[in-house]
Amino acid sequence: MSCTISGIGLAGFGTVGSGVWQILQEHGGLISSRSQGSAALEIRKIAVRDLAKKRDADAPAELFTTDLMEVVNDPAVDIVVELIGGTDAAFDLVAAALRAGKPVVTGNKALLAERGAELFALSKEHKAPIHFEAAVAGGIPIIKAVQESLVGNRIESIAGIINGTSNYILQRMTEAGLGYPEALKEAKDLGYAEADETLDVNGWDAAHKAILLGSLAHGFLIDYKEVYVRGIEKVTPLDIKFASDLGYVVKLLSLVIERDHGAIEIRTQPSFLSQKHILASVHGVFNAVAVKGDHLGDSLFYGRGAGQGPTASSVVSDLVEAARNSRSDRGFIPYQESGKLVEIDETSTSYYVRFSVTDQPGVIANIASILANHEIGISGTHSPVDADNPDAAFVEMVFLLHKCPFGQLKTALAEVEALDCLTARPVVFRIETL
Amino acid sequence: MSCTISGIGLAGFGTVGSGVWQILQEHGGLISSRSQGSAALEIRKIAVRDLAKKRDADAPAELFTTDLMEVVNDPAVDIVVELIGGTDAAFDLVAAALRAGKPVVTGNKALLAERGAELFALSKEHKAPIHFEAAVAGGIPIIKAVQESLVGNRIESIAGIINGTSNYILQRMTEAGLGYPEALKEAKDLGYAEADETLDVNGWDAAHKAILLGSLAHGFLIDYKEVYVRGIEKVTPLDIKFASDLGYVVKLLSLVIERDHGAIEIRTQPSFLSQKHILASVHGVFNAVAVKGDHLGDSLFYGRGAGQGPTASSVVSDLVEAARNSRSDRGFIPYQESGKLVEIDETSTSYYVRFSVTDQPGVIANIASILANHEIGISGTHSPVDADNPDAAFVEMVFLLHKCPFGQLKTALAEVEALDCLTARPVVFRIETL
Repeated sequence: MSCTISGIGLAGFGTVGSGVWQILQEHGGLISSRSQGSAALEIRKIAVRDLAKKRDADAPAELFTTDLMEVVNDPAVDIVVELIGGTDAAFDLVAAALRAGKPVVTGNKALLAERGAELFALSKEHKAPIHFEAAVAGGIPIIKAVQESLVGNRIESIAGIINGTSNYILQRMTEAGLGYPEALKEAKDLGYAEADETLDVNGWDAAHKAILLGSLAHGFLIDYKEVYVRGIEKVTPLDIKFASDLGYVVKLLSLVIERDHGAIEIRTQPSFLSQKHILASVHGVFNAVAVKGDHLGDSLFYGRGAGQGPTASSVVSDLVEAARNSRSDRGFIPYQESGKLVEIDETSTSYYVRFSVTDQPGVIANIASILANHEIGISGTHSPVDADNPDAAFVEMVFLLHKCPFGQLKTALAEVEALDCLTARPVVFRIETL
Repeated sequence: MSCTISGIGLAGFGTVGSGVWQILQEHGGLISSRSQGSAALEIRKIAVRDLAKKRDADAPAELFTTDLMEVVNDPAVDIVVELIGGTDAAFDLVAAALRAGKPVVTGNKALLAERGAELFALSKEHKAPIHFEAAVAGGIPIIKAVQESLVGNRIESIAGIINGTSNYILQRMTEAGLGYPEALKEAKDLGYAEADETLDVNGWDAAHKAILLGSLAHGFLIDYKEVYVRGIEKVTPLDIKFASDLGYVVKLLSLVIERDHGAIEIRTQPSFLSQKHILASVHGVFNAVAVKGDHLGDSLFYGRGAGQGPTASSVVSDLVEAARNSRSDRGFIPYQESGKLVEIDETSTSYYVRFSVTDQPGVIANIASILANHEIGISGTHSPVDADNPDAAFVEMVFLLHKCPFGQLKTALAEVEALDCLTARPVVFRIETL
């Protein structure tokens, strides 16, 4: 039974950082017992911006510094934890730690999704692993699952609800018929959305996570600049209601699907999903990731995607991993130089398209003809009539369209948009059949 | 990049064994890439009972032997995989492997749940880990989750649907109103139940898995002789229908709950669960395990609990683990000598109790009085009347009872059973609020 203590340098002592401190205080003995003494963890340096700020947890004053690089350079630090966020100072910190041969634990999805190429190269060169369980889906151990548990599987698809803020907002729009601004305000009031909600609602937080999952699953770093991302800001209560009428829910879905010849389709957008799909039951700020392996078949991982306890729990799990393995082969190193992505215009699904139109004869005929000319089949329509007022103006028409490449749909819709009878741009949602 | 090849000895080449062979044939290169070259796996010996038997996979004849011990004793074997089942020959094999200092991978829940004390002691003594992801919930990486991902959490509760056969049978009884024998026959016809279904339907397969999860979570080996286990053989379509009327489903649930002062409540039985609970949506032969950690909060792991691909996938994941860690601190070693279990009579839930009675005045009064004398409150009743025949004989009366210790309920029911008006023993289901 080895009893070496691993010294930890913590960069950032906000919600997650102080959560890590608390877990180690509370369960240090348990963690050591469970790991047969091979993971005795001690926080030896904590870098913060402002020493005077009040903290959740009361770590001894002598551990604190305002010099970020001290958490790397202190010889008592064996493992560096990066929890400061952002992609600049965090990059320098992580790069310095790797160059010093110190394993890194980080929850920073943006950093790895955008600058992973440089960092994983440093990780490989200096044989220092990067652990990032906390970067994807908070407390859900999806990194470990994809990397270790599915190691013997080709990963056919990953479908995730991995942004709790968006999921909460969409759910409130569905349940309570709220508009986007009202639901966002509610999420902020409850602390489910940050002061600056941009990355949560524009899809990029989820997309960063999907990029990491896809990179892990397929062995090459997916270039974030080539990933299709749409947010939930423009989702309307009307489309959510129509979705519900039709047996669907609207969810911000992140998908990584292996297509023919190993090309990867990766995209994040609000999509229609059958109310009966297990992911449709993921409510509130919870996250879930469905993974399909060629031998494993379908699996699902569900839990809290954010918050102090869940995220700190993942950091601690990574710390144990780092402490137990001085060997560098535990972190992720891309094993393919590059891979092929499917162009977004080539990706095929069924679609929901809503046209806002003027009520005049010929409107449906005109739109339907254009779709027909582009060989896009209509599988259903939805334009409910007010029972008490059947002669009210006909203004919203929904077509459900058979599966076709997105590019083909766009070409057809560009033609439809030129029609006089349209009062707004068509609204498109993909219908996902996972 | 290390390139040591790990030699594997495979005991058993049935469904799972040949699945392991296939995965290594198909994805050996991928596995090696993903593990940075530290897991190159080669099967070097396969022990079977009958060399002539036709197999799923075509491994070279020279690998086969009928001498079980050869998979341990062959010096080319570094890791021993036990897939023969049972608790006698399998015990000897695993014990021999551990004594030889060779890591063991096994899917044998009965072996570990019943003879784990001896085997984990050998594992500790000889510094050879036992890996058993395949023993619990097939392809779901729940062992890794509990052992590694939740390492920084006190594990407050585990609730699992971990026997696919029972889950399938109960679902068919619910959906199609089948009786137990018909649903069992259907499960057998579809290959979802084995020729001898005993351990699946009597609850012990699930209980063995729960014992392993509970032991992992709480650090001591739970004695299987002290675990409360009931199967689904006596569940009737009538109780399933009444459950449904009341907003519940009947599921074979395995529970491991930490109570006051760290005492562990562990039991497996068919229970009532709200139709809205996420575990109620686990259909067919799928398994799911809900785990609650004090920092992580609620999480759920879902997937295929049996079958060639999923189980072999878990074996391969364990093989990679074993190959990457010559160090012995990766497997589970109990870190507590013993722990306290809650006596079944002390465990409290709400209850559904169905009384079969003769239709005569005073029946309800008599039963209700006895319950009242034992201070057991009635929270609801259910005795639907045939609308077309309201004066039909009253024969089935359901009481929903407030939470009380099981022992208190048993005492009261013993008194009720002595009443003349009862035509059968009362039927009891726990109502679980997880």
